[in-house]
Amino acid sequence: MNRAEIEQADRRLFGEPQALVRRTPLWKLPGAAFQLPCREVWLKLEQVQLGGSFKARGMLNRMLAHPPGPAGVVVASGGNAGIATAAVAQALGLHCEVFVPEVCSPAKRARLAQLGAQVVVHGAAYADALRACQQRQAETGALAVHAYDQPEVVAGAGTLAMEIEQQGGTPGSVLVSVGGGGLIAGVAAWFEQRSRVVALEPQLAPTLYSARAAGQPVDVAVSGLAADSLGARRIGDIAWAVTQRHVRDAVLLPDEAIRAAQHHLWAHFKLALEPAAALPLAALQTGLYKAHSDETVCLVICGANVDPAALV
Amino acid sequence: MNRAEIEQADRRLFGEPQALVRRTPLWKLPGAAFQLPCREVWLKLEQVQLGGSFKARGMLNRMLAHPPGPAGVVVASGGNAGIATAAVAQALGLHCEVFVPEVCSPAKRARLAQLGAQVVVHGAAYADALRACQQRQAETGALAVHAYDQPEVVAGAGTLAMEIEQQGGTPGSVLVSVGGGGLIAGVAAWFEQRSRVVALEPQLAPTLYSARAAGQPVDVAVSGLAADSLGARRIGDIAWAVTQRHVRDAVLLPDEAIRAAQHHLWAHFKLALEPAAALPLAALQTGLYKAHSDETVCLVICGANVDPAALV
Repeated sequence: MNRAEIEQADRRLFGEPQALVRRTPLWKLPGAAFQLPCREVWLKLEQVQLGGSFKARGMLNRMLAHPPGPAGVVVASGGNAGIATAAVAQALGLHCEVFVPEVCSPAKRARLAQLGAQVVVHGAAYADALRACQQRQAETGALAVHAYDQPEVVAGAGTLAMEIEQQGGTPGSVLVSVGGGGLIAGVAAWFEQRSRVVALEPQLAPTLYSARAAGQPVDVAVSGLAADSLGARRIGDIAWAVTQRHVRDAVLLPDEAIRAAQHHLWAHFKLALEPAAALPLAALQTGLYKAHSDETVCLVICGANVDPAALV
Repeated sequence: MNRAEIEQADRRLFGEPQALVRRTPLWKLPGAAFQLPCREVWLKLEQVQLGGSFKARGMLNRMLAHPPGPAGVVVASGGNAGIATAAVAQALGLHCEVFVPEVCSPAKRARLAQLGAQVVVHGAAYADALRACQQRQAETGALAVHAYDQPEVVAGAGTLAMEIEQQGGTPGSVLVSVGGGGLIAGVAAWFEQRSRVVALEPQLAPTLYSARAAGQPVDVAVSGLAADSLGARRIGDIAWAVTQRHVRDAVLLPDEAIRAAQHHLWAHFKLALEPAAALPLAALQTGLYKAHSDETVCLVICGANVDPAALV
């Protein structure tokens, strides 16, 4: 995974004036807007992307690189990747089957059905749904879209980082939530070490942190507030390789801090976000990531597939 | 009201690197993102402003131009102006009293109290609360902040238009919701006729439309979905003067169309907005404002003081 693949993805995704996926806003604020001592806080507002998370970039890149036949596409997803795949498939007129684990919220299942996808619920966790999806793909010959561990999917996510740099320049650090690691792989492959890319995980879903402790990707138990979007059981191989090379910091965050940051972003910034999108602010508010006084910190606001009633 | 006053307001508001109010994002999308035949749709995402609406710009400008004494500030407001005044006063360490009519939602009253304001509920509509506020101001000598009809308040709102132009250039048209008219007065005073500024009102709160029919500002009955933020009974004098000079189109929208646009912006763009902020998209979706095929239309997304449970 490298910058050239990301540039290629960007041309594929945004080469048309009427692109399906969206350039999303980069919002620059002084640190004081968050009562933080750093110089600037940038918010990459990716939650307004098609499908409500960054995932559509990778899914569309995969489908444009390998145009599916009549069997369409299949994906296994705890939620956001499924929604993004369904949204992209619907826009392209493709048949779409989404395999989800039982932890997937009713709201997300309903949204998938609204997007025209056939929803198959299978197993307690993401890995179970993935096995069923792979079996189905072998039967039908549909294009398999992986939620986070395919080169086109990672390169698509990386276009978000390329976009940050085009819109605002190079931040001192970029704070990114990690589930299966597709997003951080794309972001770190783009920035390499020109920006300090920081991996953030819930204490209750520590795929990268545990892989580092073990010296290789390992299965972990996942639970907690953000499990329906950061609930991959194991860091992806691409993410493992890229983060080993380019990411020094892997920080774990307690659910209370994630919830507090999610509520803060609604109460004070009117950003309606899912818990996964609040990890970057939680890292700053807890001091578990400390920015220095002249640092520009970019927070990747990765998704908004949330029941808005949960915000108050 | 002219461009020089708006430029002065902008220097006052944003002269400090740690400004209290925020530069807000301008998001450019192809018309196709909304299934609209126009070339581009720009969203000025002002709902992420301090206090959840554009109002903080004008309130801070008023308080910086006339620094209040120990009696602090008083304001009468159907909601957003009160919240913005309270938020700004809290940040400046000023005492703040907010007079609200009974139509003001419990959620907005609670938010005012959270922001340290003393809340006084008076009368059925905005004009009643305003009279009580004026009486109180005469007693205490507090600085009176008007929700929409003071030069500093209008000039502050106008900085939003100046910002649009600095961020994105000059759009073909700018669609703006109207209650008392402070926002459209600032926007139209900035753009003059370089951009086509279109006034949008709910059918159930037609202050500008009725003034035009009568040839002068008149009191109107207000009700409906957006009454708690667009529920002024009469267009402001400044707004009347500016719009007579610079605004040709005044369009009325039914509540059903406003509700549909509000839901669309949540479902497809994850923007959690109050009804008043949905009028611009409602105007395009209903065809009550028709953009031509190579037009760039800027929608002013004016506020997000909404109970998120109302979005689904």
